Amino acid sequence: MADWESTGVTADPGRVHTEGRMVRVALEDARDRVADLFGVRSRQVVLTSGGTEAINAAVWGVLRADPGPVACAEVEHSAVRDASARSGPIATIAVDGSGRIEREAIDAAFAHSRAAFGRNPALVHCQWANHEVGTVQPIAAVVEHCRDHGVPIHVDAVAAGGHVPVDLGALDADLVSVSSHKLGGPVGVGALILRRGLRVEPFLVGGEQERARRAGMENVLGAIGFGAAASTLAAPGAMESERMTAQRQSDRLSQLALATTGVTRFGHPLERLPHIVCLGVEGVEAEPVLLGLDQAGIAVHSGSSCSSESLEPSPVLMAMGVDGERSLRLSVGWSTTDSDIDAFCAVFGSVVGSLRSLRS
Amino acid sequence: MADWESTGVTADPGRVHTEGRMVRVALEDARDRVADLFGVRSRQVVLTSGGTEAINAAVWGVLRADPGPVACAEVEHSAVRDASARSGPIATIAVDGSGRIEREAIDAAFAHSRAAFGRNPALVHCQWANHEVGTVQPIAAVVEHCRDHGVPIHVDAVAAGGHVPVDLGALDADLVSVSSHKLGGPVGVGALILRRGLRVEPFLVGGEQERARRAGMENVLGAIGFGAAASTLAAPGAMESERMTAQRQSDRLSQLALATTGVTRFGHPLERLPHIVCLGVEGVEAEPVLLGLDQAGIAVHSGSSCSSESLEPSPVLMAMGVDGERSLRLSVGWSTTDSDIDAFCAVFGSVVGSLRSLRS
Repeated sequence: MADWESTGVTADPGRVHTEGRMVRVALEDARDRVADLFGVRSRQVVLTSGGTEAINAAVWGVLRADPGPVACAEVEHSAVRDASARSGPIATIAVDGSGRIEREAIDAAFAHSRAAFGRNPALVHCQWANHEVGTVQPIAAVVEHCRDHGVPIHVDAVAAGGHVPVDLGALDADLVSVSSHKLGGPVGVGALILRRGLRVEPFLVGGEQERARRAGMENVLGAIGFGAAASTLAAPGAMESERMTAQRQSDRLSQLALATTGVTRFGHPLERLPHIVCLGVEGVEAEPVLLGLDQAGIAVHSGSSCSSESLEPSPVLMAMGVDGERSLRLSVGWSTTDSDIDAFCAVFGSVVGSLRSLRS
Repeated sequence: MADWESTGVTADPGRVHTEGRMVRVALEDARDRVADLFGVRSRQVVLTSGGTEAINAAVWGVLRADPGPVACAEVEHSAVRDASARSGPIATIAVDGSGRIEREAIDAAFAHSRAAFGRNPALVHCQWANHEVGTVQPIAAVVEHCRDHGVPIHVDAVAAGGHVPVDLGALDADLVSVSSHKLGGPVGVGALILRRGLRVEPFLVGGEQERARRAGMENVLGAIGFGAAASTLAAPGAMESERMTAQRQSDRLSQLALATTGVTRFGHPLERLPHIVCLGVEGVEAEPVLLGLDQAGIAVHSGSSCSSESLEPSPVLMAMGVDGERSLRLSVGWSTTDSDIDAFCAVFGSVVGSLRSLRS
């Protein structure tokens, strides 16, 4: 991004003058990099202002063409749930205690949709992996099942993208949402990735940008940052190396935390993202733990991960049937060092211990 | 933006840890700067991914609460026209040959709406100034008229913002759209400015950001750039100084161009933006003129300004009743030098002359 800014070239990539064509080349190069990371062709990639817009656009595009019920689990991100809930009736997909969506639950949601709304869903959502507890879904089986039933499927891969291999060429889902900042790129850019040949009505209208699939001047600088992050991760061995480091760091976090009495870890024990740990801490509220850790220089968060430090219980944890009021989400990333983990390990037990002794 | 990047702080401004609160302060400082430029309170400013999203959100928000006809002129930006056309029937507001919307035309559109759809419009659009020919609308009179009739009005101030004083505190329109990159800030950020106390349903859903008015992680870096550009323009005398320079430069461009046979200038002769010149060039297509000028290092564009070098005639010029097939749009900006104008003056006549001699 800094390299691009230093060229001083700014122009509308839709113009045919020299500057416009230079910007177009930079934009398409960025798009190619994003496409490469996800195993798709560049023209399948519709750049958006982020994962939330991509998800809203996916729901809008499918339901404008075929208004109808939406099959959606409560563990989906609020963007998926809210965009769906305003667009059609919901056939809820059940999850197990680890937050997993099994094929049988999809079938049950189809049956519910037929019984309640007289038809199969117009759209099914299945996240690649959960944003709060890290559970990875059996996404290939779910997508294949939906394709077999002729039901369009949207995959929210925002939490998974860049952290585990997300090969959309092999998956062949209808629509997939991804976000730049979740994989090391800048905030304010993401993509809706469409199955080859799929046309959906644009959510943002008023211009022919993105092959008439998303109106508005392209955020070229953001796209360049997204592309740079994507190609860093697409380099041979890079994602695997980051994944192993993240796994090692998050395992250490978990082991230390779980050694404290009354601490549990939520989500699937094995099928999980490498970088997210969601903990339940018995007997103390999440916020004072968060503030205690913050004083020690450790940034974690409480509550649902969707937008703010809401005091509402997490819908994800509630859907899993676990106590959603006292969760902490910890994540590691490309900039996390082992000494950051040491710092957490040094204070977690005492922060929780002092809060508990205050209560007793 | 570079200063902010150099701090290395990245966090979700919705979090309560130290990093989150630092980002929140930066974001709110940026919002304050944007609010100051437009004479509103910070909480009226909903940051978006740009003008197009702001416009789509304005139309969505008003029509979700009150579905109905929309009064809109053909000279509005395609984002305004397309977002409206998909949301309700249109009562077209006529314009004169300079592209001006007069109060009588608003009344006629109201009457048409009542006759055709049994009610006044649910929403009226009036751009502050036209993006293609630069005509400034009698916006205060139009807004007052709509308020007198109890009809909500959205003002597209994307082209005008930062180039002429846009005092929204005095205007008191219901919804106003502005864009960062049109006033010297980065691409990928804009704002929907709401009248005090007005609540509209969000267009992007799935998170509580922007006081639950726009879901999705905030583009903090973009907002900081928007804020920096806004406060540069809000400094005493700054906008007036830029305006005078732009006026002088665009006047020179016009005078030189109009000295060439068969060249006309579109738009209002006096009520106009300082930085946009739209020319009709008789007997030659716009594209070869554009390419000829590009070879001389001058970037101009042809066709409508909405998205691409469309070969369609400009709807703006068609609505004004002028030949929309052969227009060139020239604009000057904060980085334009007088020697750029000299360069244009040195080649424009010969580019047009050679193309004409090829045809004859």
